[in-house]
Amino acid sequence: MPFDYIPPLFSSNERKIILLVMDGLGGLPLQAGGATELEAAHTPNMDRLAKEGTLGQTIPIRPGITPGSGPAHLALFGFDPIQYEIGRGVLEAFGIGLQVNKGEVAARGNFCTRDDRGNIVDRRAGRIPTDEARPVIEKLKKIQIPGIVTEVEVVKEYRFALILRGEGLDPEIFDTDPQKTGVPPLPAKARVPAAERTAQLVNQWVQAAHEAIRDEPKANGLTLRGFSTDPNLPNFLDSYDLRAACVAVYPMYRGVSRLVGMDVIDFSGDQPADEFTAVKANWDRYNFFFVHIKKTDSMGEDGNFAGKVKVIESVDQALPDLLALHPDVLIITGDHSTPCLLRSHSWHPVPFLLWAPETARPDDQTQFGERYCARGGFGTISALDTIPLAIAHAQRLVKYGA
Amino acid sequence: MPFDYIPPLFSSNERKIILLVMDGLGGLPLQAGGATELEAAHTPNMDRLAKEGTLGQTIPIRPGITPGSGPAHLALFGFDPIQYEIGRGVLEAFGIGLQVNKGEVAARGNFCTRDDRGNIVDRRAGRIPTDEARPVIEKLKKIQIPGIVTEVEVVKEYRFALILRGEGLDPEIFDTDPQKTGVPPLPAKARVPAAERTAQLVNQWVQAAHEAIRDEPKANGLTLRGFSTDPNLPNFLDSYDLRAACVAVYPMYRGVSRLVGMDVIDFSGDQPADEFTAVKANWDRYNFFFVHIKKTDSMGEDGNFAGKVKVIESVDQALPDLLALHPDVLIITGDHSTPCLLRSHSWHPVPFLLWAPETARPDDQTQFGERYCARGGFGTISALDTIPLAIAHAQRLVKYGA
Repeated sequence: MPFDYIPPLFSSNERKIILLVMDGLGGLPLQAGGATELEAAHTPNMDRLAKEGTLGQTIPIRPGITPGSGPAHLALFGFDPIQYEIGRGVLEAFGIGLQVNKGEVAARGNFCTRDDRGNIVDRRAGRIPTDEARPVIEKLKKIQIPGIVTEVEVVKEYRFALILRGEGLDPEIFDTDPQKTGVPPLPAKARVPAAERTAQLVNQWVQAAHEAIRDEPKANGLTLRGFSTDPNLPNFLDSYDLRAACVAVYPMYRGVSRLVGMDVIDFSGDQPADEFTAVKANWDRYNFFFVHIKKTDSMGEDGNFAGKVKVIESVDQALPDLLALHPDVLIITGDHSTPCLLRSHSWHPVPFLLWAPETARPDDQTQFGERYCARGGFGTISALDTIPLAIAHAQRLVKYGA
Repeated sequence: MPFDYIPPLFSSNERKIILLVMDGLGGLPLQAGGATELEAAHTPNMDRLAKEGTLGQTIPIRPGITPGSGPAHLALFGFDPIQYEIGRGVLEAFGIGLQVNKGEVAARGNFCTRDDRGNIVDRRAGRIPTDEARPVIEKLKKIQIPGIVTEVEVVKEYRFALILRGEGLDPEIFDTDPQKTGVPPLPAKARVPAAERTAQLVNQWVQAAHEAIRDEPKANGLTLRGFSTDPNLPNFLDSYDLRAACVAVYPMYRGVSRLVGMDVIDFSGDQPADEFTAVKANWDRYNFFFVHIKKTDSMGEDGNFAGKVKVIESVDQALPDLLALHPDVLIITGDHSTPCLLRSHSWHPVPFLLWAPETARPDDQTQFGERYCARGGFGTISALDTIPLAIAHAQRLVKYGA
């Protein structure tokens, strides 16, 4: 349980919460003193909510720490990523829509180029294009190891995901990537005795794989990293008494949501308006909706300032559809910052807006933007506080102690 | 010790601290964007202190958690209520001015109505008025159990407090309230072997009690909850090197203060001015004064906005009496929020004002109110930081490390 003191305080009611996450929302101005992406965007709806609600800024993990997408979302959901960890193998599988269940082991695979003696000469197989990797993956798919079922899928370029399914598997296995060239891939080695059989099975698979791809010009070898399984996270219902739905386009976020026990909603389209329509279609079935917008982050990674502004504006334009559902609590925030200036995730605090007509305390801030959020009524808080604040404002907790 | 690193830094001096707590001070506007109770109040003295001092807002327990009065005060005194707990039985006894010492066991009692077969038909005995409960309590007072002394007092309506005094008592006993009707009260059962004798004594008392009140029309049964004893909290002198006095009208706050080793001052009157006179009368004997104003909270619970404003204004009017004593540090804050709008305690941050003529850092805030506090120089802090900041500004701590 992320907050042991919360479940004894549960008090059910009919109120509903929407957590709208624009991935990588936080930004930086291109010129010193200028406007950030969010500040530059024309967002009349969000600005009205900012006026009526309470602003703040969140620290995603710890001050100065730039989060990956998995940890950032765990934090938003209240699971401290320093304490709860999702393995890289599982995250990679999630990223392409594969499921990793309890007892299954996932690893991230990298194609590499090996010389005649089997030593690695290029740890990324010349970064072969995804289309070139696909036929190599087809060869790997044909491998059969007695006692387990394997699933292999291309991720991007030289990267792929491997999942092992069967009885008695254990993910406590060291990476086979030696992290340098001039040596062969390492054999899979168990960290604990219980994982020894799994290590043997992995080695059998790797041997068969190397045999199958030996004549490939570039991708004639592979290494495996981040062996991991379902981290067995506490679920949303137990932790917060919320029947939670995930509305997200990208597989990674759907996967992480599934891990914490959310129902993942299927819908068509990939625009904010499509996602909001999916919320509407499921409005009666849940009392918590996690809605994830990916493209703010993609534009940030591309360094496309105008593009990120445009995505934010498209969310703002569609927002009346969400508001028409009359949520009792609406939080608009990001999972981390992705300033176009840096073309990458960053450690900067994340804008946070909580709108709750009954209970939000006014803070005299008039616009949704980083500099307003920094002066907002919540101050600077941890992203871990997001869900506790949401359920408090939904008045779903009784008081602590007499 | 709540802060292990503080006692080695003690440095004595003659400076004096006043912690003025207006219970449930934090509020909400009645209309979106309007003024809170504190902002609406005309408080020229507090506003001057706000200008000269430093503002902030405190999180009483954890973000989103609405505190009860006991936990909220523990937090103000620096004892994390998630770690340190005062049992409900002890709190209930405190609320009516009873003392619970080490080795004694207190429980909260509820009268209930039982049918012919002894099953509960009304868990609150028809919420009988306090005046009707009093003669029933008189019957309970006459019960004698060999080996222990019992004290019973009415609290309000169907609620009463029971204290057991004697050798070898242990509070680790389950509630006897079955939490439903149609069944008899549960027998007292020990959680641990050491409490078995106590459970037997409780059962003897309950049997005698049921016998004594069997002919009552409504209150012919009872249940007991929250068995607890003095939680053996670290005291103020050891924790902070402060000779502390409590000036409070309501028994609950006097009880909690006694638990942390404060001297509880007797005085007459129940107005802020009376409390400040009590501080003056004891000014030379202590270097720390906890002054508690209850009626801000009562007005909040009643939903009486104008009434809460008036209480705050009455405190402001009396404030010159406190200032005339020339405290070196004056903190004005609440233990939690009790917005009139919600008619209950809430999780919202609490306004915090620290005035220290020598050491407060200016923050350009000009008024004591929630939105000013949210932008104040302390930012958003934990209520646990209150006393450490007070003794720091009293310059009673040397530096940590060389």
